[in-house]
Amino acid sequence: MATISLAEARTLVAVALRSAGANAAMADATARSLVLAEAQGLASHGLSRVPQYSAQLRNGRVNGSAVPAVLAGRGGAARVDAQEGLAFAACELAVAEAVRRAAEFGISVVGVTNSHHAGVIVDHLRAVAAAGMVGLGFANSPAAMPAAGGKHPIFGTNPVAAVFPRRAGAGRQGGDPLLIDLSLSEVARGKLMVAAKNGQSIPLGWALDAEGQPTTDPKAGMEGSMLPIGAVSSPKGAMLALVIELLVTALIGANYGFEASSFFVDEGNRPRIGQLFIVIDPGALVGREAFLDRIEVLVLEMLKDEGVRLPGARREQLRRAAERDGITVADATLAAWRTLV
Amino acid sequence: MATISLAEARTLVAVALRSAGANAAMADATARSLVLAEAQGLASHGLSRVPQYSAQLRNGRVNGSAVPAVLAGRGGAARVDAQEGLAFAACELAVAEAVRRAAEFGISVVGVTNSHHAGVIVDHLRAVAAAGMVGLGFANSPAAMPAAGGKHPIFGTNPVAAVFPRRAGAGRQGGDPLLIDLSLSEVARGKLMVAAKNGQSIPLGWALDAEGQPTTDPKAGMEGSMLPIGAVSSPKGAMLALVIELLVTALIGANYGFEASSFFVDEGNRPRIGQLFIVIDPGALVGREAFLDRIEVLVLEMLKDEGVRLPGARREQLRRAAERDGITVADATLAAWRTLV
Repeated sequence: MATISLAEARTLVAVALRSAGANAAMADATARSLVLAEAQGLASHGLSRVPQYSAQLRNGRVNGSAVPAVLAGRGGAARVDAQEGLAFAACELAVAEAVRRAAEFGISVVGVTNSHHAGVIVDHLRAVAAAGMVGLGFANSPAAMPAAGGKHPIFGTNPVAAVFPRRAGAGRQGGDPLLIDLSLSEVARGKLMVAAKNGQSIPLGWALDAEGQPTTDPKAGMEGSMLPIGAVSSPKGAMLALVIELLVTALIGANYGFEASSFFVDEGNRPRIGQLFIVIDPGALVGREAFLDRIEVLVLEMLKDEGVRLPGARREQLRRAAERDGITVADATLAAWRTLV
Repeated sequence: MATISLAEARTLVAVALRSAGANAAMADATARSLVLAEAQGLASHGLSRVPQYSAQLRNGRVNGSAVPAVLAGRGGAARVDAQEGLAFAACELAVAEAVRRAAEFGISVVGVTNSHHAGVIVDHLRAVAAAGMVGLGFANSPAAMPAAGGKHPIFGTNPVAAVFPRRAGAGRQGGDPLLIDLSLSEVARGKLMVAAKNGQSIPLGWALDAEGQPTTDPKAGMEGSMLPIGAVSSPKGAMLALVIELLVTALIGANYGFEASSFFVDEGNRPRIGQLFIVIDPGALVGREAFLDRIEVLVLEMLKDEGVRLPGARREQLRRAAERDGITVADATLAAWRTLV
């Protein structure tokens, strides 16, 4: 393994993506996001995606010529057309548009249609927190979870993200925003892979088999569906997944999870899934100072319990370390990328 | 038990609340909501609340003279001050204001501050679906659940509700909107009460005891905290509860769950909790017809699995039956109410 700076990593990833067919803006935005994920310790959304994205740029599942554009909207609402390119530049544009519209109209919604895998959703919302606003981000993904009472996968694992800004220098973690980011599956598919590898069974409530029956066999689960959070007790998680699925598709013209081919295969359609960002300006409601004061009241109450860690704190710690120390990349990968420069 | 019409039930409940000190508008709005809940089979949010609300009107925990008012907002954003009265008239006003602002600005957010128990959140959103729009509703409640990794209750069970309109006469259930409504606890406290009564243990992941330790004893759980959905696997549910808690309080000036006294005791403060409604007009995004078409595509896919029931279908079935056949009320309750007319 070799250690390189984040700046070098961004340059090399962008070069790799350009060599696979991405235009410069797409390559740069994607590189920024993947390196940011890697720096935060989120390896599954980091540099490991470069070969996948490159393959789909080469085989046409991603349109490397896409130039995302804001479609006409009204007031606080607008759509961005990702033009079947990689999602990152489109999400960046959508969030900038949402911040601008929220500053004018108090709240905004900007959806990204004809889109692709958007990585770490909450990272797109960092610009919202930097503007002193509250951001919500949602996305769907190729079908992985069934509807409540259902047997076949329909919804993606459908991430939900949120940012809340904090007053600079306030309390612990000196003003870092609260960064919340989760998918609606009870567990990630990776936990099934680990259990299968170790020959362990999995609890009921993690997965259904290919026939739609509850299973404790991780291999059967991997061929079936992941279950939404809390599925062993109630359909609540499936209902949340339904809400997110509809918000990020039907409202903006994007594909449902069951209409999109997996990101993890070379064959298949352009997934044309969706992302949706909602931005709220506290200045249009209780007022910015009162809002920031109240955030700190809740933070103090949460931190009374020793086991509580603020959401995003660990990611920010890792990101700062990576900015100082760099990140590690496999020697072979690094050598391959450097030949492209 | 006696059977009475919904109209008579609304009249009697309103009279009972007026006799406890509610003004006419508060009594009427509350009666409409409680009878609607009862008609849908949601007894815990129906007529059983009349004695509780009446007691709090009498002992001053609810301001019976409150006249909810829209505070100045900007664009799509506004607040409603419930003035420490019962929440229903304030929520009705907030949703009407949100629909009006969404029609103009594409999206709106209206928060209700200085509020109280708002009953079945999704029922407030029925007016949104009737206007052909998408609605989201959130609320907090007196502290019941800990933060992720925490030991003491901070957040309410924090309901999340959503409505999506359907084309009139489309497919099964003839155009009824999709009505989604859930709280973020793994199970309702009522399940602990049943287990305690039956001498049964409860699964890990339902509750913590008073010391903040996981428990399988339902009585210990009832003295401790309820756990958020999926807590046995991850902090995702606690993170969702945090997001809702902040949206409905810090943004609009309402109390956190840990600052509000229980609804179920006579003593305590005016809870001053919050509700928040977000309304999105599909006409400002993909267009209303395209949106309704796409809703039906998902409904058809969901109904391919025989076990799937559309969210709200059962409630609508019960509501129609109650409109035709009336609801039952205990004889003693009915006699007491009738003496007040």
